Amino acid sequence: MAFDFTANGKPPHSEAAPLTPLLADSGRTASRTEGIAGRGLLHRRALLGGGVAFAGAAGLGAGRTTTAAADPLIDSPWGLAPGDPVPAYQVPSKFAKNVVRTLSNPNFEPRTSQSRTPHQLLDGAITPNGVFFTIVHDGVPEVDPSAHQLLIHGLVKRPLIFSYETLLRYPMTSRVAFIECGGNSAGLFSPQPLQADVQALHGLVSCAEWTGVKLSTLLEESGIDPKAKWFVGEGADAAHVMRSVPLAKALDDTLIALYQNGEPLMPGNGYPMRLLLPGYEGNMNVKYLRRIKLLPEPAMTYWESQVYTEPLPNGKAYQFYFVNEVKSFITKPSPGVSLQQPGLYEISGLAYSGKGRISKVMVSADGGQSWGEAALQEPVQSMAFTRFRMPWHWNGGPAVLQSRAWDEDGNAQPTRAQFVAARGELPSVPPVLAFGNHHFNAITSWAIDQKGQVTHAYA
Amino acid sequence: MAFDFTANGKPPHSEAAPLTPLLADSGRTASRTEGIAGRGLLHRRALLGGGVAFAGAAGLGAGRTTTAAADPLIDSPWGLAPGDPVPAYQVPSKFAKNVVRTLSNPNFEPRTSQSRTPHQLLDGAITPNGVFFTIVHDGVPEVDPSAHQLLIHGLVKRPLIFSYETLLRYPMTSRVAFIECGGNSAGLFSPQPLQADVQALHGLVSCAEWTGVKLSTLLEESGIDPKAKWFVGEGADAAHVMRSVPLAKALDDTLIALYQNGEPLMPGNGYPMRLLLPGYEGNMNVKYLRRIKLLPEPAMTYWESQVYTEPLPNGKAYQFYFVNEVKSFITKPSPGVSLQQPGLYEISGLAYSGKGRISKVMVSADGGQSWGEAALQEPVQSMAFTRFRMPWHWNGGPAVLQSRAWDEDGNAQPTRAQFVAARGELPSVPPVLAFGNHHFNAITSWAIDQKGQVTHAYA
Repeated sequence: MAFDFTANGKPPHSEAAPLTPLLADSGRTASRTEGIAGRGLLHRRALLGGGVAFAGAAGLGAGRTTTAAADPLIDSPWGLAPGDPVPAYQVPSKFAKNVVRTLSNPNFEPRTSQSRTPHQLLDGAITPNGVFFTIVHDGVPEVDPSAHQLLIHGLVKRPLIFSYETLLRYPMTSRVAFIECGGNSAGLFSPQPLQADVQALHGLVSCAEWTGVKLSTLLEESGIDPKAKWFVGEGADAAHVMRSVPLAKALDDTLIALYQNGEPLMPGNGYPMRLLLPGYEGNMNVKYLRRIKLLPEPAMTYWESQVYTEPLPNGKAYQFYFVNEVKSFITKPSPGVSLQQPGLYEISGLAYSGKGRISKVMVSADGGQSWGEAALQEPVQSMAFTRFRMPWHWNGGPAVLQSRAWDEDGNAQPTRAQFVAARGELPSVPPVLAFGNHHFNAITSWAIDQKGQVTHAYA
Repeated sequence: MAFDFTANGKPPHSEAAPLTPLLADSGRTASRTEGIAGRGLLHRRALLGGGVAFAGAAGLGAGRTTTAAADPLIDSPWGLAPGDPVPAYQVPSKFAKNVVRTLSNPNFEPRTSQSRTPHQLLDGAITPNGVFFTIVHDGVPEVDPSAHQLLIHGLVKRPLIFSYETLLRYPMTSRVAFIECGGNSAGLFSPQPLQADVQALHGLVSCAEWTGVKLSTLLEESGIDPKAKWFVGEGADAAHVMRSVPLAKALDDTLIALYQNGEPLMPGNGYPMRLLLPGYEGNMNVKYLRRIKLLPEPAMTYWESQVYTEPLPNGKAYQFYFVNEVKSFITKPSPGVSLQQPGLYEISGLAYSGKGRISKVMVSADGGQSWGEAALQEPVQSMAFTRFRMPWHWNGGPAVLQSRAWDEDGNAQPTRAQFVAARGELPSVPPVLAFGNHHFNAITSWAIDQKGQVTHAYA
């Protein structure tokens, strides 16, 4: 029941389009690189083979020349005395104290709490466990795994109960997968671009390596009544989130996840066990999982009949859409991560799709008039973050950066105009926490001014 | 100058060898699975396709049968009241307090401190940052990145200094790579098997996704004097570790790593910057990196002329060996992770090679008399952890579990007998901290007794 934007799936300019002249402020730089699209986008090969594009780029403000005789490196305090003791569990440096999640409910009032991942300060494709986003509706429960059980019942042949210790003995499967809240990026439903950073706008998505037991293995043990077509998962925390999932997903790639990036799940991410439905809306990946009940039809729980049912401009309802469609956004530069002076930069960001692997990411520096193909960090994995990178020569003039992703299923990320024509806008949204509509996956635009400041724009 | 064990690179029995009879205690189980090697090893396909091998396995002690009417799940305390506030940086549950590193120097005496990764309690192929192993020789320094600089000098055309902020603007590369201390597994040089767990014996290796700037990019900017053949890296902490590296490695895949599993490096792992030399001995991956000096020959620092120079049984010295050769070990079951009753189990472990991708892992349950090929978790990446899994029916009798890995470069993990014949033993080693010889990569054996207890053995 999800929308399909693949009819608009062709990039305005393919990689083979005529080169737009490089708007360079340095003849030396321009002579060593190859412009691929407007406002200074360079061919992605400039990132490879020894950094040709960046070598000697005075505009980069790169390594200051010195002489060995003038080596200014004297011992700093940390070179003159012993450091700190080694902890059993290490956490980041106090100098990285800004690389943390932002909290929507810092005073812990009795309502939902979102914590958002600081993508503008991260790199790579794994989200570390400390800053993996979380949403909890009644605080973070302290679940004792020795007292926690998982019940599988309903339309099964043998209802079964599993302890945590028992599940640990089953065959495990590991896979990298993103999880995205259905409300991520909801601020972009606003008719005017909200001035917020990538953490506030897109921080409700993260990606980890998950390890757990295939739900299909447990259902083979319980047996399945042929009348079963759906299952509902239920959490053990006070919020008792319940969501309905087609049984086909259970028999495909659903995991009872026990490990996150190698260690037991974080408390905010469902310790000791959660559903992992690769590519499906975050809320469905029920945390603190305590019951799975097989049903002939959806349970029509609060979360699917009220929260995740959207009115469409045509008067119909948008419901049971599940999949996080193909999406991308630029993390560097981005609001708060500004440019200091004209020169060479790397544009970097994240792309992902709930329908498979990312097949291509195109980047524009001129608001979508021309495009160049970005380099994708290998390995490109299905339903996982893919880091893309694009070399760019900023000439000091205004620019509008965009990224647009395609997946192997043939889906293209829509423009915002296409998206809101189908899904509508929210005329009056509170800044950032603009829930009330979901699954925004259109192109994000960052405007660069002549001072190098980055703002959120619609283009 | 490293040893080559490839002459012994053939497994005693290939996958196509005649099947050894399955020693099953359950006719029902045996009829549904396929024995592949002695003492109950099953074909790896038993892990796939819905868990055929494990379904209905009474011996597994799996899901207890119940009825929906008798659902014993009443609300636990965490289901009846709000949980805890959401922190900006999350850490594990208090119920996972044993999933931490063990410390060799908990009282922080003035000597080297090792912290070891609890592999017996982890799963997957990523080591989370909190429990990534560390070795520091003078405590963990609190390096202020705004006051830290990296100097590149020596046989270069232009000595250069880079601030942390400057490096953040360079093109980044991400890759997954393990780092292993040269002294990992040194306890296995003991002539008698030390009774310790996998964390104590093999906990000085971990694996993360690293992101940073290619050293070759910076050297292209500095220029290289043709006389340069090596470089020496130097750390900024009080220990000032210095190690010599062939220049060819710098021009190949060396990174100045800035991010670890997405976030800035952990303080114990080199924040704000370190050398990443994929596949090379941990100590060479200099942390808190402050100087790179290009040289015509090795610097012969303390760490390479004293610590990492080994006497061989033939009277010669073993020096500048660099690469962590192909290796594997079983993490589950392992000492402390025992078996409770006969039945089906998953044998799981880690394999890696400093020379490329893992091509094959064979597992034996009878001390190396017969072998079956394990399943490898995809994607198998070069110089990264590869998780292997093998289904096993334990009949309650004694068994000896072994794993043996091969890499795409054609190298095979040696048996311990082969290894010590070439490299010698250490006749009197203190338990666990048995440094004094390095790069032990031979097969590890876990003996299972009739009670299901697991001990370290030589077989």
